[in-house]
Amino acid sequence: MILSQFQEVGRNLFTQGLVSSQSGNLSIRLGECLFITHRGTMLGSIEEGDLVQTGITKNGRSTPLASSELPVHRSIYQHTSALSIVHAHPPYAVALSFVEEEIIPRDMEGKLLFSRVPVLDKEVLKANELCREITEALKQHKVVLLRGHGSFAAGQLLEEACYYTTALEYSCRLLYLLKGLGVNAGQNF
Amino acid sequence: MILSQFQEVGRNLFTQGLVSSQSGNLSIRLGECLFITHRGTMLGSIEEGDLVQTGITKNGRSTPLASSELPVHRSIYQHTSALSIVHAHPPYAVALSFVEEEIIPRDMEGKLLFSRVPVLDKEVLKANELCREITEALKQHKVVLLRGHGSFAAGQLLEEACYYTTALEYSCRLLYLLKGLGVNAGQNF
Amino acid sequence: MILSQFQEVGRNLFTQGLVSSQSGNLSIRLGECLFITHRGTMLGSIEEGDLVQTGITKNGRSTPLASSELPVHRSIYQHTSALSIVHAHPPYAVALSFVEEEIIPRDMEGKLLFSRVPVLDKEVLKANELCREITEALKQHKVVLLRGHGSFAAGQLLEEACYYTTALEYSCRLLYLLKGLGVNAGQNF
Amino acid sequence: MILSQFQEVGRNLFTQGLVSSQSGNLSIRLGECLFITHRGTMLGSIEEGDLVQTGITKNGRSTPLASSELPVHRSIYQHTSALSIVHAHPPYAVALSFVEEEIIPRDMEGKLLFSRVPVLDKEVLKANELCREITEALKQHKVVLLRGHGSFAAGQLLEEACYYTTALEYSCRLLYLLKGLGVNAGQNF
Repeated sequence: MILSQFQEVGRNLFTQGLVSSQSGNLSIRLGECLFITHRGTMLGSIEEGDLVQTGITKNGRSTPLASSELPVHRSIYQHTSALSIVHAHPPYAVALSFVEEEIIPRDMEGKLLFSRVPVLDKEVLKANELCREITEALKQHKVVLLRGHGSFAAGQLLEEACYYTTALEYSCRLLYLLKGLGVNAGQNF
Repeated sequence: MILSQFQEVGRNLFTQGLVSSQSGNLSIRLGECLFITHRGTMLGSIEEGDLVQTGITKNGRSTPLASSELPVHRSIYQHTSALSIVHAHPPYAVALSFVEEEIIPRDMEGKLLFSRVPVLDKEVLKANELCREITEALKQHKVVLLRGHGSFAAGQLLEEACYYTTALEYSCRLLYLLKGLGVNAGQNF
Repeated sequence: MILSQFQEVGRNLFTQGLVSSQSGNLSIRLGECLFITHRGTMLGSIEEGDLVQTGITKNGRSTPLASSELPVHRSIYQHTSALSIVHAHPPYAVALSFVEEEIIPRDMEGKLLFSRVPVLDKEVLKANELCREITEALKQHKVVLLRGHGSFAAGQLLEEACYYTTALEYSCRLLYLLKGLGVNAGQNF
Repeated sequence: MILSQFQEVGRNLFTQGLVSSQSGNLSIRLGECLFITHRGTMLGSIEEGDLVQTGITKNGRSTPLASSELPVHRSIYQHTSALSIVHAHPPYAVALSFVEEEIIPRDMEGKLLFSRVPVLDKEVLKANELCREITEALKQHKVVLLRGHGSFAAGQLLEEACYYTTALEYSCRLLYLLKGLGVNAGQNF
């Protein structure tokens, strides 16, 4: 049941090109428990052994197999009401993250979902700060972008966090296409 | 039988990137009955519980689960001969909708199907007017675009409305590629 | 056996975006017999009833269900050694067909397969002439482009004609990307 | 077991558009044995008969069916510790290979995997030299590009060589999108 949620969302993200063959990671929270994909999981074809179970706080046991983004996932679960997190590398969103301080969607779906999506700069922030900044951003936003890296989306269901990710990429792809047509973000429609 | 039509068309639209994971909606009319996908259906993997049955006119029962676009679907069924409707978010068509008043295809298939595809402006029109304008447009056209939002296509079979949607996106993608090559819509071929 | 060849090639073309949901057509020749997809076949999911059997010459029986491109297929089989034909709408190839008189690939695979791919102009040629021109071109070339319309590729196996189509599209996509990088066709590499 | 690895990786590469219907080839080394896809294998649907078994050195028996890139695969296995090789035609990487002497990723994943990816020029180097240059490059790099042709990636598992290929293409696609946004490789982020 848990596994099939991970599989459907993973396949979805891979099919839409939002993760490469081994990038991205997914997690869910169940009480004080956390299930996260392990390092190098191919999200397009998740298998039973690909899920690591641990706690939302760092307890005694080490988790060498869990995704290296585990500290970010933990921090989000500790400080927000999220029950599911999707980390992906959506290509148009990542491209825009190099030149924008925040993403402001132009399509109706994006506007309804996000008034704006903040872009955090990994180079500028230290690792600890970054973790805190992502967590802070997800208290107010459904999804946040790390410049040159990828997105973190949080929701109740994994499906929901996946939806925010794909909707962000759709909005960013549209913004990119609009730049090609000479439409600037500042123009009124 | 009904379900499998929805599933095939939904998968088709999702595979071609014309809807994101939870955007878009589909409906068919059977007599005075209307079957429509419910809010947030993942069109790429429609299941039995994803279809809502209601009437083509607003009767007593409320339909809180039906797609929020239900009023548009109802209006189209009431005033045209359509038996199937596909609402999608084709990215190149939506991008062009920002800069064009109408889409005039340049490829042979698009020219045979559509002499032109009108673009309606949601910001300018009030909700009631918009519903009426979409319906009016679909009396004369196979498909219509809403600026910054998406397409509505109407046909007899769901497959047919899907075909108009994918053919419109193909034509728009070609127009976009041609702009990149410096070919303008006005040039004669 | 015949059906499964059509199904595999059709699915392949659709998955790669070389045909839209109902565009394109496939045929094979067996002796004096010709099997062709019928009008409006969804190449991504060909079923048994989608194939029409007829002759390579126009005999008494009419074939109202066969693809409207049947005369082109017949002409190719009558005048060349082809045993399989794929007609598709590859988007980058069609885009370039508006601005090029012939396609000259830059990638190694394309160069090995095609020294050049001719572009015929449907607007300029009459229907009869066009049919003859396509046939003539396929005596010397593996694939030919019709401006603003699509490609015809001929081979022994359907798989082979499919390969020429996908390789042409790959070469054209690369040429398009190179234009975006400021590399012109005339430059030497 | 061997077959299923080839099938999964082949399907993966095809789905992501990194090989066209019959381009690309895969191999693995088992002791002194080498398994390689045969000429014209459709990587998207590898079957049992598509694998050719031979040695990592040229022994007496000829291998007319093996991929024409067999000498490159042999040379890599003879002179490096690679156990798996993926040769593909990733379109954005090939496009950039025309204008760059080396690829320097800008995304975090690409930066972690590759400090730089060398671009070799097939036109400039003779066949023998090229084979040696590819082998030399793969002693220090996970993946190498041949200008106007494609990539060779080497790893322990086929999955790993596939991952390097898709990660390279992701980095190159991002670099291409960034050029469209006016971001140059020289800019500091």
